[in-house]
Parts: sequence; structure tokens; C-alpha cells
Amino acid sequence: MCNVNRTGFMQLLGQLTVAGAVSEEQFGERVKYLQELGDDHYVAVIEDTEKGQIIATGSVLIEHKFLRNCGKVGHIEDVVVDQTVRGQRLGQRIIESLTQFAKDKGCYKVILDCSVENAAFYEKCGYKRKEIQMAAYF
Amino acid sequence: MCNVNRTGFMQLLGQLTVAGAVSEEQFGERVKYLQELGDDHYVAVIEDTEKGQIIATGSVLIEHKFLRNCGKVGHIEDVVVDQTVRGQRLGQRIIESLTQFAKDKGCYKVILDCSVENAAFYEKCGYKRKEIQMAAYF
Repeated sequence: MCNVNRTGFMQLLGQLTVAGAVSEEQFGERVKYLQELGDDHYVAVIEDTEKGQIIATGSVLIEHKFLRNCGKVGHIEDVVVDQTVRGQRLGQRIIESLTQFAKDKGCYKVILDCSVENAAFYEKCGYKRKEIQMAAYF
Repeated sequence: MCNVNRTGFMQLLGQLTVAGAVSEEQFGERVKYLQELGDDHYVAVIEDTEKGQIIATGSVLIEHKFLRNCGKVGHIEDVVVDQTVRGQRLGQRIIESLTQFAKDKGCYKVILDCSVENAAFYEKCGYKRKEIQMAAYF
């Protein structure tokens, strides 16, 4: 993440939800925090090297539980593919990369939340519909 | 968590899903790992002090994002109330405690996954139904 173009990366996230005007300092601090998590966090990116632009990303956070024999679970978050390059299986490659990472780190499962409309995409990636997501906003 | 009765705590989690036979050493290592997360992880417990038994628990893991101005999100996990004391609002107290913790730490939202049957309980706790959960098991 150190070498990532901050503006381009934040613009890509802005296609998913409000990304905000993150300063270079804020961005650097967040990168540092996430690096300290070591193998418990991973951001996958796909870059268009000709344009020097990140065109797809997603992240996975690994949770360490007590249950399931002190098992680990991967939480996939913030998956987005640039609107100009959708339909090229880039999202699938991001999910495969994040899922494989979690598997390699010993997780017994990986979970994510998505809209009903996106469920078919995740089913193609090997995911199954399970529970429902609830949220409280502050 | 240091002073928690390991056997009783794991038996309580076993009412939720497979908890497994976690050794004292494994348990101690997991507690140590979670303590190192500092304010990014919190386990709430309610103890029956007469019986010296944990009767309700839940945890929240705080995720540090890039989007939403480098925002933070609380992930509530592993909420369980002992089957002998259900219907006494202990679950609600656990959720309130976890939600307040995440709010105090600056999260812009808290999310959790639950069964359709449990949605009404979380709605009483101020949560709203949002997306769907997908999972891949290894």
C-alpha cells in the first residue's frame, strides 16, 4: 500500500461509498496501522500499469476467535472494480486473492456482506448465502 | 479476560457453535493476542457472581478502513446468553455495551450477522436490517 497512488485509490473507493478527502498524512497513518496488523490484514489491488491506475481492490481482516478451537475468520470488505473495466472478471480475481489469503492464514471460513443483487457474483466465487446483516449507524 | 473461567466461558460459547477443547495454553495465547489489539477489540461478559459463572458474552472487533475518511467500523461477533437465563435482557445489555464501546472508539457504524429469527431482537437494540451475508468454508 506504500506505493499506491492515494488519490486514485480513494477515487476508486468513492465508487463504492463516501471515501472523503483523506490527506496524505491520514493515508500514511492508516497504511502504517494496517501494516502493523501484519498477516491479519491484506489489501488486494489490481493496477492498470499503463495508466498507473488502481482499477480494482478489496480487503480482508482476520478475526481471532475463542470458539472453533480458537479459530480464525476472514472478513472481506470494501470490494470495488472501476466502472470503466467491469465485466472482465477483475472482481473475481480480487475475491479469489482475498479468499486464498485467508485460507493460507488458517481461517476456517471467510464471510462478507453484500446486496441481494450482488449475491450471484459471490456465488460464482464459491460463496453461499448464509445469514442477514444488521447495522447501527452513529 | 485474564480472570475468566476458561472452561465455563468455552462451554457458554459451545451453546452458539462448536467451541472445541481449548487448552489453558491456547486460551492464554488467544487472550494475549486480543489484549495486544488494545482498543480495537473488546469482549463483554456478564457473570453470575454467586455461581462464579459467565452467563452472557459478546465481542466487537474494530476495523480501520480507508473509506469514510479513514473511518472505523465495529464488527459484533459471538453473542450468546446461557440457555438457563434467557429472556432477562442480558443479551440486550451485552449488545448495548459492545455498541457503546464501538461508538466511544469513533466508529461510524457497527455491523453484525444474525439469523432471520434473531433480527427482531437486534431491531429492539437499535439495529436495522441491511444486506445479506455470504460465506465460504474451508
